[in-house]
Amino acid sequence: MEQSGNNLRINGARLWDSLMEMARIGATEKGGVRRLALTDLDRESRDLFRRWCEAAGCTVTHDAMGNMFSRRPGRNNSLPPIVTGSHLDSQPTGGKFDGAYGVLAGLEVVRALNDAGLETEAPIEVAVWTNEEGSRFAPAMVGSGVHAGIFTLEQAHAITDIDGKTMGEELDRIGYRGEGCGGRNFGAYFEAHIEQGPILEAEKLPIGIVTGAQAQRWYEINVTGQESHAGPTPMAVRKDALVGASALVLAVNRIGHDFQPGACATVGMIESSPNSRNVIPGKVFLTVDLRHPDDARLADMDRALRKAATEIAETYDLIAEVEQIWSFAATHFDPDCIAAVRAGAEAAGLPHMNIVSGAGHDAVYMAQVAPTAMIFVPCEDGISHNEIENAAPDDIAAGCQVLLHAMLERAGGH
Amino acid sequence: MEQSGNNLRINGARLWDSLMEMARIGATEKGGVRRLALTDLDRESRDLFRRWCEAAGCTVTHDAMGNMFSRRPGRNNSLPPIVTGSHLDSQPTGGKFDGAYGVLAGLEVVRALNDAGLETEAPIEVAVWTNEEGSRFAPAMVGSGVHAGIFTLEQAHAITDIDGKTMGEELDRIGYRGEGCGGRNFGAYFEAHIEQGPILEAEKLPIGIVTGAQAQRWYEINVTGQESHAGPTPMAVRKDALVGASALVLAVNRIGHDFQPGACATVGMIESSPNSRNVIPGKVFLTVDLRHPDDARLADMDRALRKAATEIAETYDLIAEVEQIWSFAATHFDPDCIAAVRAGAEAAGLPHMNIVSGAGHDAVYMAQVAPTAMIFVPCEDGISHNEIENAAPDDIAAGCQVLLHAMLERAGGH
Repeated sequence: MEQSGNNLRINGARLWDSLMEMARIGATEKGGVRRLALTDLDRESRDLFRRWCEAAGCTVTHDAMGNMFSRRPGRNNSLPPIVTGSHLDSQPTGGKFDGAYGVLAGLEVVRALNDAGLETEAPIEVAVWTNEEGSRFAPAMVGSGVHAGIFTLEQAHAITDIDGKTMGEELDRIGYRGEGCGGRNFGAYFEAHIEQGPILEAEKLPIGIVTGAQAQRWYEINVTGQESHAGPTPMAVRKDALVGASALVLAVNRIGHDFQPGACATVGMIESSPNSRNVIPGKVFLTVDLRHPDDARLADMDRALRKAATEIAETYDLIAEVEQIWSFAATHFDPDCIAAVRAGAEAAGLPHMNIVSGAGHDAVYMAQVAPTAMIFVPCEDGISHNEIENAAPDDIAAGCQVLLHAMLERAGGH
Repeated sequence: MEQSGNNLRINGARLWDSLMEMARIGATEKGGVRRLALTDLDRESRDLFRRWCEAAGCTVTHDAMGNMFSRRPGRNNSLPPIVTGSHLDSQPTGGKFDGAYGVLAGLEVVRALNDAGLETEAPIEVAVWTNEEGSRFAPAMVGSGVHAGIFTLEQAHAITDIDGKTMGEELDRIGYRGEGCGGRNFGAYFEAHIEQGPILEAEKLPIGIVTGAQAQRWYEINVTGQESHAGPTPMAVRKDALVGASALVLAVNRIGHDFQPGACATVGMIESSPNSRNVIPGKVFLTVDLRHPDDARLADMDRALRKAATEIAETYDLIAEVEQIWSFAATHFDPDCIAAVRAGAEAAGLPHMNIVSGAGHDAVYMAQVAPTAMIFVPCEDGISHNEIENAAPDDIAAGCQVLLHAMLERAGGH
């Protein structure tokens, strides 16, 4: 006897138990996880996922990047699959939820559909993307990136870790190099993830409907003044590079506030020279990270940064050289997929808000090749990439419930 | 036949030649000098000075710190001597004028008096103070410091260089450890020095009448916020330690400008943590150097600094811990000695201004035990402690001429 999709409930306790069991692979003393991409621990986590999926009646394959796809057939298997997933690799001192949540939420959707004996029209797949973190092999999101055509397979296989081992070799070694990568048609892609920021917790909302990911630009700025003795050099004749750099830090921060909602502006690094107590700094190097959900607004932030640098250089009689070293356009998720996530939250009676991802995720690359959306759930104090990363079981369950609804809506047949 | 003191001229060319000859000892390729305290090169420079002084009819002695005194007798040798001097040691990449000028200007005064056949009432001495720079043996101004009772002889002899050699051993090795140190009565102490700052050059004045040395306080400030991801962390909830630290750098700079004339305020060091491009800085360490000729005004600057730190911590939701780690009261030179320097500049028709020393000099310690004043001459671009340190022959001569007048006025008998 079939349940209707709208009444279907995921099993929050089972999902939580699976998360905790997965977290034993590479568990750290502080309660986190160290499970670097393509290590033996990564293989162990993949093997566990495979066993669970096969026990749930799925067929598990992997491609030439080691990306895994666990397939639950639909009524019409010629339809493109509705896919969800995330990653099982972690930061060197990572948490239990980043990545693993999205993978195991997908598995729980399959299990819940099995419990209900519900067949979808289109097949459903749960994906595990290789090397999302970029900690062992830089850059990040390589498996999904190759799948989406951002990187070639050859490029990706040649990436080396710190010991000179390539991704290709390590895929062979752990037995997860398959054939081909990408070129597949997905009906939709959904990814559940902890927010890795404090917004949902602050708003006391269990669900973030992720409408896209921020555009981003990185800069390096060199401020040059004149090094001189802090004692005999009068204030009026100084060319203090650190004073100018500090004005720039405040200007960057102001730009972040001026371009709300959505803007982030950060000076993460600063290096002053000669960095001596009684010498006026002659040179300062700093980095700027500007982000905004809207490309045009980010371009305005760029102009504001350059204007501030010019004005500050004039004010303090310095040279300020601004160089943009990297950029990334805004990602806009698919309106229908976003609507499916929202409908899922509403069907489940879960309070929600729209949110833009500040960090990169496999979904950002998937959005290049498939209708995509994401679901965020709160994490404690907004902390992630940290062994103390934590999330509430109710929120973890809520996100999975929304994922189930969204996937069902797109897969059809209930 | 005696010349009157007021018509007496020093020989600028002879002084310049002596400076250039002394600068050959430890000469560097870039035109500077490397002559670290109590090295063989230091001994060579001392020996040359001794030979020149003995040729000028002086008696040269040295004390237990290696401080040298070249004495030209007066008519009444029971009177305390009128002393001038400076140091012959240099920074590792120092210049030709810092220190050596004050010593050789003293020698030129003696030579000029000899040329004129002029006998002073009180004896005249030219001093060479040991380890003024503090580059090989920290702290700075050790020879004059022991002489003035700031350090004990035992403390000073025990100071080690980077190889573990003590000042005591090295004084023995170069043959410049004598008996006793300090406890002598000086009628006055004058020191000629390059300014090591840009004021006189900017004002196009050859003579600075140094009325004292700045009071000084050093601080360490730790700013603590919360480290978090630069992407998903909204501006409104950030606790960016670098933003607070930057506001502090600007506040320190503003304090320097607010307490003019005379104030200097510098952040020389800054260290941000974790110093990663896409992480909001959680901790910043910075150092503050505040100086003012007036102790009470410096105390006001201290209060302004602490107030700024408190306000900035509140504004940006940070903790700012301010610790004063060192202080030094203002030095006020002797009014009569200052007047003697001014009278000398006027007698020589040399434009002048009052100036306060921003840096430390042996005269600062001498002022603790003897009526003291200093004479500054301009240096090129205000640059010192640098191999490109330079000064104009006319200015070098002018300062020596003023020194001659001032010493004659105090020594009497002309």
